[in-house]
Amino acid sequence: MHPDRTPDLSLADTPSINDIHAAARALERFAHETPILTSSSLDRIANGTIILKCENFQRAGAFKFRGAFNALSKINSPGVLTYSSGNHAQALALASALLGTQATIVMPSNAPKIKLRATQEYLNMGGVAGSRIVLYDPETQIREELGERLANEHGLTIIPPYDHRDVIAGQGTVALELCRHARNLDALFVPCGGGGLLSGSAIVTKTMLPDCRVVGVEPEAADDAKRSFETRTLHTVHNPPTIADGARTPHLGRHTFPIVLKHVDEIITVPDDALRHAMRLCFERLKIVVEPTGVLGLAGAIEHAKQAGPSRGRIGVIISGGNIDADSFSQIINP
Amino acid sequence: MHPDRTPDLSLADTPSINDIHAAARALERFAHETPILTSSSLDRIANGTIILKCENFQRAGAFKFRGAFNALSKINSPGVLTYSSGNHAQALALASALLGTQATIVMPSNAPKIKLRATQEYLNMGGVAGSRIVLYDPETQIREELGERLANEHGLTIIPPYDHRDVIAGQGTVALELCRHARNLDALFVPCGGGGLLSGSAIVTKTMLPDCRVVGVEPEAADDAKRSFETRTLHTVHNPPTIADGARTPHLGRHTFPIVLKHVDEIITVPDDALRHAMRLCFERLKIVVEPTGVLGLAGAIEHAKQAGPSRGRIGVIISGGNIDADSFSQIINP
Repeated sequence: MHPDRTPDLSLADTPSINDIHAAARALERFAHETPILTSSSLDRIANGTIILKCENFQRAGAFKFRGAFNALSKINSPGVLTYSSGNHAQALALASALLGTQATIVMPSNAPKIKLRATQEYLNMGGVAGSRIVLYDPETQIREELGERLANEHGLTIIPPYDHRDVIAGQGTVALELCRHARNLDALFVPCGGGGLLSGSAIVTKTMLPDCRVVGVEPEAADDAKRSFETRTLHTVHNPPTIADGARTPHLGRHTFPIVLKHVDEIITVPDDALRHAMRLCFERLKIVVEPTGVLGLAGAIEHAKQAGPSRGRIGVIISGGNIDADSFSQIINP
Repeated sequence: MHPDRTPDLSLADTPSINDIHAAARALERFAHETPILTSSSLDRIANGTIILKCENFQRAGAFKFRGAFNALSKINSPGVLTYSSGNHAQALALASALLGTQATIVMPSNAPKIKLRATQEYLNMGGVAGSRIVLYDPETQIREELGERLANEHGLTIIPPYDHRDVIAGQGTVALELCRHARNLDALFVPCGGGGLLSGSAIVTKTMLPDCRVVGVEPEAADDAKRSFETRTLHTVHNPPTIADGARTPHLGRHTFPIVLKHVDEIITVPDDALRHAMRLCFERLKIVVEPTGVLGLAGAIEHAKQAGPSRGRIGVIISGGNIDADSFSQIINP
């Protein structure tokens, strides 16, 4: 792992707080305003007041729906395409079904059956002619090449999972709802993969609650964002070994990296065992199902509390998604 | 299993709707107003609009807190006692801690460690002198005898888990919140063990939404309430083999049976496999953790939908609790 390439750090093409407010209006009748949970037993563990924004209850099971829907709602194109094996595929399939847009979802043939089935169900629900999943063999085909070829052939617009102005603006609406509800926060802990949720949330938080520290949380084995942040040079990881599959992204994006540098206060990492512990805590204390990537923020807040002083104040945490089947959950928390 | 004894069916000593409104006021700053969830994928499965009232998010993890707290708030006694291996023990421990009342909780020595630990944690949190768990050996001791002896010796008031006017009134506040939110409902499906939640909910529903059908749901192997309801004679089961441990209660109560007869429209049963299926559905589609007894209402609503016509209208469902550890959950849904 080594410094790699550093994009233009200009903020010219990044979303403003007004873009995020506009995204909130676009999402109004379509996305859930997700619940905010608190728990006195969690407060005792974290030595502060923890305020959880639960995007595992978002449509299609993750915050990704907000970005996909916002981007799609602004596009005037005969069809869209994305490549994803994860939550963005389901999110775009659902958004396209709701908006009646033709969608092509490029997925690896070895993607979990539950994700393939959910994506297909959303496309069926929309019933838009030409919407389909295209499977590729990850051993022999490169998804970006296949995706670009298909997009060119059929005149489709590619909606990437995070590195896109309108996707970031949509994802930032999570923090908009949280900041409005919480009124004041001493810190906000946000999962970090490609940095879409983190950068959107940071723009909002630094506008609405300027004294709130914004902390991104990555898996220890996928610490590219932390290294990039600390060196101000883009670092890359390749298929890092972590259970947090949504944070296996190779690097921050052209749009997300400059926003993270400007608005985020700190990036920390947590080991996979802290994710397992936080998943179990969510299950047994909060009665909610969270996927490994989804607990990054909570695991970060708990690790931070251990190292910090007696009181941690009011801590916001974004729980980013809950797409995991019951059997995988059990295998992951009992390795 | 045979008809056993039939109590006085008078409604003289049962709570009124006003008692339930008073309970709601007593609970106001202490109980959570639990979230109400909906899910379009669940609606497709159940062929109607399902409105879930999620008491798995209640304090101490189940609706039991409402009844325990309400009863305790009205008592003027040096201390209280209950015998329970389940959610009522935790609920009473927490309520006593919040109100500063001395509590004695009689629990079997083979109770799940997680329940013993949670109960002890609540008692510790309260720090009331004399509050304690008393363990008994279920092979050699009868809990009611031990409980009554201790209550007499120490002048403690027994707070039973369901067959108590103030407990029923507190438990009825679940339906109060649901009916207010839902505005209209065609049917309400409620888990039924001893009938406290069912009878409290039925009083409220028949007052606020008189056209709503109230349906109690029992495990197939513990169908005492169904038989009692249909014959108007109290039937009993003894330690029935079902995963729904909260519905292993031997029979409806002196207070709950007459209310059920008067206000409930139907009692149905579901097999344990329907509970497993509903638990998995809650986990994978709704991202919530529900214990086997807690999904009785949802499993009943789904079974009912299969047998009924094309549209099932607006269906309220009470999810009653979520106290199950992750490993037991996995074992139960994969028998």
